[in-house]
Amino acid sequence: MADELILNGFIQCSPNHQIKGMWKHPLDETSRGYRDLKWWIRLGELLERGCFDALFFADVHGTYDTYGGNRDAAVRHAVQFPGIDPTVLIPALAAATDHLGFGVTYSTTYFPPFQAAKLFSTLDHLTDGRIAWNVVTSYLPDAERQGLGVHLEHDERYDRADEFLDVCYKLWEQSWEDGAIVLDAANDIHTDPSKIHEIDHHGRWFDVQGPHMVEPSPQRTPVIFQAGSSARGMQFAAQHGEAVFVASPQGAAGAELVTNLREAAANAGRDPSSMKIIHATRLIVAETDQEAHAMKAEWDRNFSVEGFLALFGGWTGIDLGGHSPDTPIASIPATAMRTWVERWQREDPNHEWTVGDLARRLSEGGAGTAFVGSATTVADQLEEFAETTGLDGFNLITSPVPWGLEQVVDHLVPELQRRGRLRTEYEPNETLRERWFGRGATHPRSQP
Amino acid sequence: MADELILNGFIQCSPNHQIKGMWKHPLDETSRGYRDLKWWIRLGELLERGCFDALFFADVHGTYDTYGGNRDAAVRHAVQFPGIDPTVLIPALAAATDHLGFGVTYSTTYFPPFQAAKLFSTLDHLTDGRIAWNVVTSYLPDAERQGLGVHLEHDERYDRADEFLDVCYKLWEQSWEDGAIVLDAANDIHTDPSKIHEIDHHGRWFDVQGPHMVEPSPQRTPVIFQAGSSARGMQFAAQHGEAVFVASPQGAAGAELVTNLREAAANAGRDPSSMKIIHATRLIVAETDQEAHAMKAEWDRNFSVEGFLALFGGWTGIDLGGHSPDTPIASIPATAMRTWVERWQREDPNHEWTVGDLARRLSEGGAGTAFVGSATTVADQLEEFAETTGLDGFNLITSPVPWGLEQVVDHLVPELQRRGRLRTEYEPNETLRERWFGRGATHPRSQP
Repeated sequence: MADELILNGFIQCSPNHQIKGMWKHPLDETSRGYRDLKWWIRLGELLERGCFDALFFADVHGTYDTYGGNRDAAVRHAVQFPGIDPTVLIPALAAATDHLGFGVTYSTTYFPPFQAAKLFSTLDHLTDGRIAWNVVTSYLPDAERQGLGVHLEHDERYDRADEFLDVCYKLWEQSWEDGAIVLDAANDIHTDPSKIHEIDHHGRWFDVQGPHMVEPSPQRTPVIFQAGSSARGMQFAAQHGEAVFVASPQGAAGAELVTNLREAAANAGRDPSSMKIIHATRLIVAETDQEAHAMKAEWDRNFSVEGFLALFGGWTGIDLGGHSPDTPIASIPATAMRTWVERWQREDPNHEWTVGDLARRLSEGGAGTAFVGSATTVADQLEEFAETTGLDGFNLITSPVPWGLEQVVDHLVPELQRRGRLRTEYEPNETLRERWFGRGATHPRSQP
Repeated sequence: MADELILNGFIQCSPNHQIKGMWKHPLDETSRGYRDLKWWIRLGELLERGCFDALFFADVHGTYDTYGGNRDAAVRHAVQFPGIDPTVLIPALAAATDHLGFGVTYSTTYFPPFQAAKLFSTLDHLTDGRIAWNVVTSYLPDAERQGLGVHLEHDERYDRADEFLDVCYKLWEQSWEDGAIVLDAANDIHTDPSKIHEIDHHGRWFDVQGPHMVEPSPQRTPVIFQAGSSARGMQFAAQHGEAVFVASPQGAAGAELVTNLREAAANAGRDPSSMKIIHATRLIVAETDQEAHAMKAEWDRNFSVEGFLALFGGWTGIDLGGHSPDTPIASIPATAMRTWVERWQREDPNHEWTVGDLARRLSEGGAGTAFVGSATTVADQLEEFAETTGLDGFNLITSPVPWGLEQVVDHLVPELQRRGRLRTEYEPNETLRERWFGRGATHPRSQP
């Protein structure tokens, strides 16, 4: 029987996550719901009914202010702005569920590692070991203007992230011995000081003596998520990532990416199977292919070129603010952009690529297209994608929310269950790490 | 009819809050419960059943390492160590309740104000306007060894806190105009950029451009709690505090403290009634006086002198590590300590005060004694305290938990309600600020 696939919901605590412009759709509740506790709890309960592995929260610091030289377009189209802090939502969702895991994005570029370690230990206690940390570095220079800290260049950010994680590992894994809390009433000893250790970390970025403020939690170290796509980012993922997110191309190119990641993990001294590789998948499932394609037409109809280009500007530093959607790419001097378009042009030599085309194409994500159709259609697509590339599962991005996720739970989930591709019930009392790496998997997979 | 009193539960996310040594009592569940979500939810539900105003969380950075020159005593007696991050608990408690307010301690000495502003706006959204921020400065030098930031001297900490709040007020009150979110689908405008403003803060401690990351929450600014007892701390409280916590003495001295605080508020240009003054009260209520006093005997029996002295060392910088509990204070050269003891000695000139006596006396708190007895007895004591001093209410500290709070809810609450001193039900749909300052009280009381 084929392996079970990992299935996560992927969302942001912001009015409009990835499918730009869909806040306008009458069925989309995110604009109002993203700041409403009860709405989130309903979403968590929905995903647990669907036997999902986890709900995974994106987050960002700073605003997207490259397009047009200001943040107006980002504000106008709710491009990851406004946004609330996702970490404080999680215990409320944990209280409403028994099994669903939670992944949350937290940056290593600002804030002290001691604070992050305390936060994630707290979350691990309160979720009974269901927490994962999506370790990111912050790339928007605008965050510096919020007073969060000095903006760092790409490779420096990863150097800092390495040391940040090093400090956290020491606090989580080495500072408290098992059994340090003795509760010895006769001798008036709550905790045995000889079993609590300082970590004495002195590095380039951080000096942290410790000890850790929090007693060991079920997982000690949260499951480490990572999503670097640059060379330095992949090296970081190979070293630390227990689950690595990719925007993978389909077929052979996707297989190569997966192979490279597993090889990089092996080169870092790890068992390559200790890394779950998970693709960010845009999808629409409905009762029929026709109904799903009707919703895809709504995505296209609501799509905001300007909103997407604001996002694109933040990712790439390329400002397309001065160019109308029908401007040919060939007329704009921006090398990276031309390289992509030349690749696409080889697929269809007669099409002249415009700014609007570029936005539409990139907005479909790494797979080059969203998966759209009935449960049978989409399950076929997901299975084929997983089999031809070798990846382990999917972060599902859909819209409108919650409609899109309800369709997944009502139609796709039973289909995947019939095919033996998704659990029909959760194992009792397992941590998120145990769910992915087997009962008794207690320490981070990335550590010896 | 006499005014209603404010009633808050006061607790810390740590094994043993203020009543040192009570972790040993068989009825105390805190050691296990403080890291258990379901336990906290049960506590929140209990306080809402008791029509409490709010549940208020203490927190601290650093460990208490003055006593004996290390943190061993603090570890041994669970002196605010270990501890989890209280902020992430609150939405889970908000989901389990409809009215209970939440106050949480958050330091202005470390971390960027932008992050604090985002966090509290998030909490205000998720609690529907039931959040308060207990603004503190961090006094334990040990926090510097955790890499949280440079330890600051007392008055510098308050200068930084002033500017920290200034930044937060600007982000909360000035960055977003009402109605900035327009949801204009026809023109593809989610948020109107012309209604979002940078705050352009450039000060001694912080440079923050903004804009605020979070759209306006029900209260915009959380209710500001403050607890400074030094001259500089009281100045800070007079300027910012909407609720000020005191460890007030009883009678005339307490009345003087309350008068001074209200005068200081008036001098800062505020309506003195815009400041609620709340006393931290240790109490034990039971069905009978006898039963309550039996529990008080348990407090005394379990009391850990060493645990208290570890706490005392962190507060005062005085290390009593080398002195046994029966050492006379008069034999120890520490001026501040002698001053207090000389005052107590005037009350009872024949008693020779020892280190152990000092610990026991100080552990009773500012009122000089815990309130112990049946509901009638304790209600009498609370009413008399409030009337003779003019303060507005109480932060209740009790032990064991939850037993102590259950007794309060089952016995004291109905008695206070009979006397018209506590609501019998909550007003619907009011923010915490409206509960204390009247319907329509939207902006912070401390601001013009």
